[in-house]
Amino acid sequence: MDHLKHIEGFARLDFDRHKRTGIPESILAEGKTTEQIISLVRCFTQKAGYSLTTRIRVEAARVVQQQLQPDLKIVYNETGRTLVAQRAEHTFEPTGGKIAVLAAGTSDLPVAEEARVTAEVMGCEVMTAYDVGVAGIHRLLKPLEQIHELGVSAVVVVAGMEGALPTVVRGLVPIPVIGVPTSVGYGYGGKGEAALMTMLQSCAPGLTVVNIDNGFGAGATAALIANCVAAAHAGRKNGE
Amino acid sequence: MDHLKHIEGFARLDFDRHKRTGIPESILAEGKTTEQIISLVRCFTQKAGYSLTTRIRVEAARVVQQQLQPDLKIVYNETGRTLVAQRAEHTFEPTGGKIAVLAAGTSDLPVAEEARVTAEVMGCEVMTAYDVGVAGIHRLLKPLEQIHELGVSAVVVVAGMEGALPTVVRGLVPIPVIGVPTSVGYGYGGKGEAALMTMLQSCAPGLTVVNIDNGFGAGATAALIANCVAAAHAGRKNGE
Amino acid sequence: MDHLKHIEGFARLDFDRHKRTGIPESILAEGKTTEQIISLVRCFTQKAGYSLTTRIRVEAARVVQQQLQPDLKIVYNETGRTLVAQRAEHTFEPTGGKIAVLAAGTSDLPVAEEARVTAEVMGCEVMTAYDVGVAGIHRLLKPLEQIHELGVSAVVVVAGMEGALPTVVRGLVPIPVIGVPTSVGYGYGGKGEAALMTMLQSCAPGLTVVNIDNGFGAGATAALIANCVAAAHAGRKNGE
Amino acid sequence: MDHLKHIEGFARLDFDRHKRTGIPESILAEGKTTEQIISLVRCFTQKAGYSLTTRIRVEAARVVQQQLQPDLKIVYNETGRTLVAQRAEHTFEPTGGKIAVLAAGTSDLPVAEEARVTAEVMGCEVMTAYDVGVAGIHRLLKPLEQIHELGVSAVVVVAGMEGALPTVVRGLVPIPVIGVPTSVGYGYGGKGEAALMTMLQSCAPGLTVVNIDNGFGAGATAALIANCVAAAHAGRKNGE
Amino acid sequence: MDHLKHIEGFARLDFDRHKRTGIPESILAEGKTTEQIISLVRCFTQKAGYSLTTRIRVEAARVVQQQLQPDLKIVYNETGRTLVAQRAEHTFEPTGGKIAVLAAGTSDLPVAEEARVTAEVMGCEVMTAYDVGVAGIHRLLKPLEQIHELGVSAVVVVAGMEGALPTVVRGLVPIPVIGVPTSVGYGYGGKGEAALMTMLQSCAPGLTVVNIDNGFGAGATAALIANCVAAAHAGRKNGE
Amino acid sequence: MDHLKHIEGFARLDFDRHKRTGIPESILAEGKTTEQIISLVRCFTQKAGYSLTTRIRVEAARVVQQQLQPDLKIVYNETGRTLVAQRAEHTFEPTGGKIAVLAAGTSDLPVAEEARVTAEVMGCEVMTAYDVGVAGIHRLLKPLEQIHELGVSAVVVVAGMEGALPTVVRGLVPIPVIGVPTSVGYGYGGKGEAALMTMLQSCAPGLTVVNIDNGFGAGATAALIANCVAAAHAGRKNGE
Amino acid sequence: MDHLKHIEGFARLDFDRHKRTGIPESILAEGKTTEQIISLVRCFTQKAGYSLTTRIRVEAARVVQQQLQPDLKIVYNETGRTLVAQRAEHTFEPTGGKIAVLAAGTSDLPVAEEARVTAEVMGCEVMTAYDVGVAGIHRLLKPLEQIHELGVSAVVVVAGMEGALPTVVRGLVPIPVIGVPTSVGYGYGGKGEAALMTMLQSCAPGLTVVNIDNGFGAGATAALIANCVAAAHAGRKNGE
Amino acid sequence: MDHLKHIEGFARLDFDRHKRTGIPESILAEGKTTEQIISLVRCFTQKAGYSLTTRIRVEAARVVQQQLQPDLKIVYNETGRTLVAQRAEHTFEPTGGKIAVLAAGTSDLPVAEEARVTAEVMGCEVMTAYDVGVAGIHRLLKPLEQIHELGVSAVVVVAGMEGALPTVVRGLVPIPVIGVPTSVGYGYGGKGEAALMTMLQSCAPGLTVVNIDNGFGAGATAALIANCVAAAHAGRKNGE
Repeated sequence: MDHLKHIEGFARLDFDRHKRTGIPESILAEGKTTEQIISLVRCFTQKAGYSLTTRIRVEAARVVQQQLQPDLKIVYNETGRTLVAQRAEHTFEPTGGKIAVLAAGTSDLPVAEEARVTAEVMGCEVMTAYDVGVAGIHRLLKPLEQIHELGVSAVVVVAGMEGALPTVVRGLVPIPVIGVPTSVGYGYGGKGEAALMTMLQSCAPGLTVVNIDNGFGAGATAALIANCVAAAHAGRKNGE
Repeated sequence: MDHLKHIEGFARLDFDRHKRTGIPESILAEGKTTEQIISLVRCFTQKAGYSLTTRIRVEAARVVQQQLQPDLKIVYNETGRTLVAQRAEHTFEPTGGKIAVLAAGTSDLPVAEEARVTAEVMGCEVMTAYDVGVAGIHRLLKPLEQIHELGVSAVVVVAGMEGALPTVVRGLVPIPVIGVPTSVGYGYGGKGEAALMTMLQSCAPGLTVVNIDNGFGAGATAALIANCVAAAHAGRKNGE
Repeated sequence: MDHLKHIEGFARLDFDRHKRTGIPESILAEGKTTEQIISLVRCFTQKAGYSLTTRIRVEAARVVQQQLQPDLKIVYNETGRTLVAQRAEHTFEPTGGKIAVLAAGTSDLPVAEEARVTAEVMGCEVMTAYDVGVAGIHRLLKPLEQIHELGVSAVVVVAGMEGALPTVVRGLVPIPVIGVPTSVGYGYGGKGEAALMTMLQSCAPGLTVVNIDNGFGAGATAALIANCVAAAHAGRKNGE
Repeated sequence: MDHLKHIEGFARLDFDRHKRTGIPESILAEGKTTEQIISLVRCFTQKAGYSLTTRIRVEAARVVQQQLQPDLKIVYNETGRTLVAQRAEHTFEPTGGKIAVLAAGTSDLPVAEEARVTAEVMGCEVMTAYDVGVAGIHRLLKPLEQIHELGVSAVVVVAGMEGALPTVVRGLVPIPVIGVPTSVGYGYGGKGEAALMTMLQSCAPGLTVVNIDNGFGAGATAALIANCVAAAHAGRKNGE
Repeated sequence: MDHLKHIEGFARLDFDRHKRTGIPESILAEGKTTEQIISLVRCFTQKAGYSLTTRIRVEAARVVQQQLQPDLKIVYNETGRTLVAQRAEHTFEPTGGKIAVLAAGTSDLPVAEEARVTAEVMGCEVMTAYDVGVAGIHRLLKPLEQIHELGVSAVVVVAGMEGALPTVVRGLVPIPVIGVPTSVGYGYGGKGEAALMTMLQSCAPGLTVVNIDNGFGAGATAALIANCVAAAHAGRKNGE
Repeated sequence: MDHLKHIEGFARLDFDRHKRTGIPESILAEGKTTEQIISLVRCFTQKAGYSLTTRIRVEAARVVQQQLQPDLKIVYNETGRTLVAQRAEHTFEPTGGKIAVLAAGTSDLPVAEEARVTAEVMGCEVMTAYDVGVAGIHRLLKPLEQIHELGVSAVVVVAGMEGALPTVVRGLVPIPVIGVPTSVGYGYGGKGEAALMTMLQSCAPGLTVVNIDNGFGAGATAALIANCVAAAHAGRKNGE
Repeated sequence: MDHLKHIEGFARLDFDRHKRTGIPESILAEGKTTEQIISLVRCFTQKAGYSLTTRIRVEAARVVQQQLQPDLKIVYNETGRTLVAQRAEHTFEPTGGKIAVLAAGTSDLPVAEEARVTAEVMGCEVMTAYDVGVAGIHRLLKPLEQIHELGVSAVVVVAGMEGALPTVVRGLVPIPVIGVPTSVGYGYGGKGEAALMTMLQSCAPGLTVVNIDNGFGAGATAALIANCVAAAHAGRKNGE
Repeated sequence: MDHLKHIEGFARLDFDRHKRTGIPESILAEGKTTEQIISLVRCFTQKAGYSLTTRIRVEAARVVQQQLQPDLKIVYNETGRTLVAQRAEHTFEPTGGKIAVLAAGTSDLPVAEEARVTAEVMGCEVMTAYDVGVAGIHRLLKPLEQIHELGVSAVVVVAGMEGALPTVVRGLVPIPVIGVPTSVGYGYGGKGEAALMTMLQSCAPGLTVVNIDNGFGAGATAALIANCVAAAHAGRKNGE
């Protein structure tokens, strides 16, 4: 039995995941029943004051709202398929972190909104610019100026089809870019592989990627970076 | 035996391929011995006055030059791996067709040069602009102006890695663009698939593609289009 | 902020896409609600006098017709899944451009019709020949003669299954051929990959391809070429 | 131990593979040392009077010839990479079976020759026609006439690149066609997958395929069919 | 226009496909409306006395029966999804050809039955043995004996999952085997690729394959071989 | 006919599969009608006293229960989609074999439960620990201690997504681990390939895998190992 | 810093890997210089009395032997590419565990030998039977009888090409089978994928697999199982 | 020509890439001749005071050193295949940024070192911990403590084979993690795909990835983040 001692250390692990990783746990609605979602929302809001549910379909969201309001404040984002619940007394404290979310086309909106809401829940200010694809490259000017003026610390760029937008953006900003390929497209490479490959092949250092359609992961990473920078501005160390 | 009569018509097909398809046959050196190449060059130059050999390695090219010069005029392009041989009295008559060849990076040069030489052999004037990748997008300005001023009829855009250049170019010129993905890259999608997928996914109509590294096919197609336009300018019909 | 100046030039980009690229923007119905389609049709017809909607299902087309007729002239092509709307006073001015659309089998018709309608909207005369697959190769004779007689400038060849038709056609005409693989087939390679691969492997220069089922892109490219040739006949330069 | 009784029957299996399957065993040189090949050739010729070695490189073949001649008659086919060894008194008895082997391009020759030699070793008369690809479709006329006149029972069609030849041939002969895709090609689908997919997608019943480059398997199957037909002509039953 | 003369020969091609290829054309119901199917059945039966429809769903088959009976004799095979229609006076003349159809598991039955019906329509006698997979290898004894006694000329072996049955059978019969991989399976390789790959990798010469689920192609090829052998027995030449 | 003698031995194979392989045959409900399932359950319970049905949907299970109870004792596991039926007098005799089933996430439960029920039907005692994924690695401590204390002989580890759990577990127990990748995930690698690849790449010897979602196979193998060990403890030889 | 306490437990992990996992660590020569190998062999033999090196090329093995003999006893297995080194006083104590290693073809020998040597180093008695592929299925009788008589506890079955052997063997023995696909083969599926897929698709529970060519992993797993059974026979618990 | 005006803005872009993107341009030696490398090193050091060359083979590095020393200070890292050249007077000014680089196995070192050198060139302090794979998970303790104590802002985690290490690390630190899959492995998924897929599937937000073996990209991104944080600590804005 001695050989198991070395994992005993694990047993002491009872502090919360948010503190350990800098990102709050969320509820992935996909593959869960409405009952399961409601019970998880209740549990999370009790423990942390709020909860973030992602990939929730409109019917389920309606039921959650009916059952939990007005006990909880609930904001449902139909495009982004997110549902944020808060206890009456809870507020999201701004961290001072700032990110931007850009999206290439209108079909990329659900993923972009998922990223935006995630970052806001993490206390960030989020600037958005949608429909700024490579075909309409001149529309990038405004958002790039705003990124500079706001002092944004990280940019999420959401793009399906040929997926070239993150590379172009990365070449024009002095901060990290997180690319999110989306499952928008058709024929050869049309389920997001083309966009994913393109982003991985990109010769632009400073660009990293998450899996296809993973708006939550991208938003959380960008917010994590922005929060680190904001903490530094405020004179605090990482993780404090 | 009656059921074979319908292909007898084929038997009369004895005019040359160039006339039938608008593109001269070429010698693909890959997989051929130097002896075979020399004998084909002799045969082609006798029949047509000249020959175009593609994908020829430097050692083979040296031997061909030693054996066939000065009987034939020979121009070997080491970067593009092409060898053009002509009888003393032969000249390439300009058709008036004009194309452009753009390349994203220096590793795309061999394919770009193969396209250029092919189009020149077909009588076109070829304008080139290399190293104008998406990361250096401002370098596109000059070539795009030249494309307009020269009255170019088709553009070949060669790009490996993330392969976004053809889409960007297509959005800025009112003429057909032929994309050539190259087998430049690494890791996931690194043998040209990322570039091929990206070009096929592109939402820019007017962009068509050839297979990975097929500079010959792209150059020939662009020249074919340019020659059709030039013939129209001169008041001739297609194929005349 | 200086480093953003170089994209200011973009801001002046307010002329229409048609002029810049030679191809009008279209409405992709796939993934849009009927309300969104109707509003886009209204917007496009107001701006440009007409609109082209592709991949529109029959139910949506019916609703569009009910709501917008007789204010707008509407032509719905059920096979090709296209809907063309025009203001009363609008007419498509013939450019003099001529293309051909060939299809291998009856299941390739939707894609072929999409190509045809697109080219017609761009002012081209379109000759069609369907059900001329490799198995019925003798049926190619008539269309090939017509292609020659009409003075067609580009051919779209639509083929699923084994996809050899574009190669065969390219070997028999002196003008560019655009291959469109279709997602017709079964088992290994059955979602269009076999046809796409075959067309890319083809040793016939002058043949370029678009992505699987992309009839719009192929029709637009062929029309673009034909319009360039027609303009040349009329003594005009590209893009004028 | 009782449960193993049912495979005891196997133990009686001592008649030769040729009788059981209609096809003689052969020696695959790939992955074997020259010594191993020589010892297998000796063993096979002693047992059966002859041996067929496939995929043998020229250096190994030279050594085999030096060591085993003149004890054995040896015929080495450098193109097809086959080596046939016979005892002085051995002759291949003609079965009366007749097949044809067609090849699309010159790079398909090694596979075609492997098929031819295999069928000859099995006693068949083999008619060949090489370089009859889809691009030179009119060259098919002669071979198809000969196929009819000779009374051939099965056709092997070898093709890389676009791989449409077997389908075309199958549509013109009333006998089984065996397609052999070859690993000739480049870029996307260039290792024989394009050809394999195309042949499998083919809508021509009566066409079956073997794996990429498997000339031996195709030649053996065609000869098996031809020998069955020949036996029937001679009034014998299968396998006799 | 001269360069088109060589395909004029095609125009004379007006004899029927059955005579040219030895296999009757069939109606693939997949992707056709019930109306289209009925009209094709009418057309085929008028021309040839009978028709074979494959991949027809039960609802469509019911409608066809209601509308065309009793004018036509109709046999619908629900498992094999085939519908055979005949004019009152038509009979399928036995050719004397004999084949066997073996299937590994019960989920392979639809494909096996499609093969059986196809071969019967081509005049063959068909022996079947289903549920004789590798796991129940001892159940192969009976069918193999029958194959020998009946004098079968070709065997169709249908197998999904691991697809090893055709290889095993090929090792035990002296006649050609046609493998049909089926889209039965799960997880990695579960859509028929495992079975297809296995059959192509098989080192058993004399085994050729058709695409996944292509029972029609396999049955037709086997019947074609059997009919050639039967014709030889009767002293006739191929194609007569 | 002599060449078939060697498989005659097969004919004697009439003892039951359980004895021969150590694992009872089960009924795979997927792809079967409720009638077929009921008839198979009747047949199996008559022959063996009990039956195990896997992958059975809740509707089918309800019907089976209605029709066969109370003649048979029936236990339906909705999560694991298994249905165990027994004759009144039947009991599962404990073999003394002990296994553990661990699962990484809640979506892996169906596969884990299928494994558990299978092993129990084979007479094993099964310890389970669910929701012990790599992200919650400290939760592994308890189950690993129990594995040691109980004297478990084999561990089934079920994991989708990144699939690293089996490797981690294998590094901490001195007994064989069987990894089951599940089709849980999204985007690139999301149908279980990521998990399958990860387990196959693992450098932990003693870890073997089954196909994606194959809980039955994993449970049966673990139980087979545990039963061998238990038999050894009891002084019996394998297979007795 | 508190959040790192939970992994402190790890620090106590100083007992050896063999005790913890039941399998000794080995030296993978691939990608290491001869000097690195020698130093690792020295280190391992000092610590554990012996060492197992896998995938070692003949040149490296010669150098190791020259430098370390006669200080160490060294056994180099050229086929299996393994090198076992022992201190003079070291002996491998037999555990009483018994396994079998079967291989389908001669090209599968290196992987089979790697499995054999690994199991012997772990104290097992190993019975081998090579060249018993599906094509020579009757040759399985003898080995299967021996497996029974010896009381073997697990079977490793090594097979490339079509990879069906493990399934067949699993159907005939009442003990676990570990399949090892090998990278033997050609064309489609020829780098071991066909064999891997086939084994994963197999419907034979009790069969698990390791990655392509992983003889070490398979041998180690089989030996682990056999050692557990042997320990049970001797009345010891797992891991003791 | 008007339609080109909008890219004129580009022409003003003449400041350096480092300022625009926060990352200095580097020289990728792969695919370049030694002469080209030397000339680029000369050019870069003249312009920027130093240069970073990646993927340089030892022979080329020797020549570069011989030719450019002692004019330039040169540090060649053989493991990481990097060469850093500096003018005598140049020093890398520390930014105050701090990152960590962790590697799972010894074969991951080249990629890890490439990341380390890149970050150092960008002015970061880099802490490294190699050989801390999942199998030796207890060895993670020390590095994780150091990461905390040093106040590291981003972690690069390099891992081939199963690639789970980044997920595990991400779960234990409150800062961004950048995963780098390496092309270490074998068989199915062995060229880095398994590791790439695993990292993309990971459910740990805050983890993003770069392409296989892209140590340069990962190091540059981590340094970019760390430099942003350091600038914030120093009270500066991004990009200043």
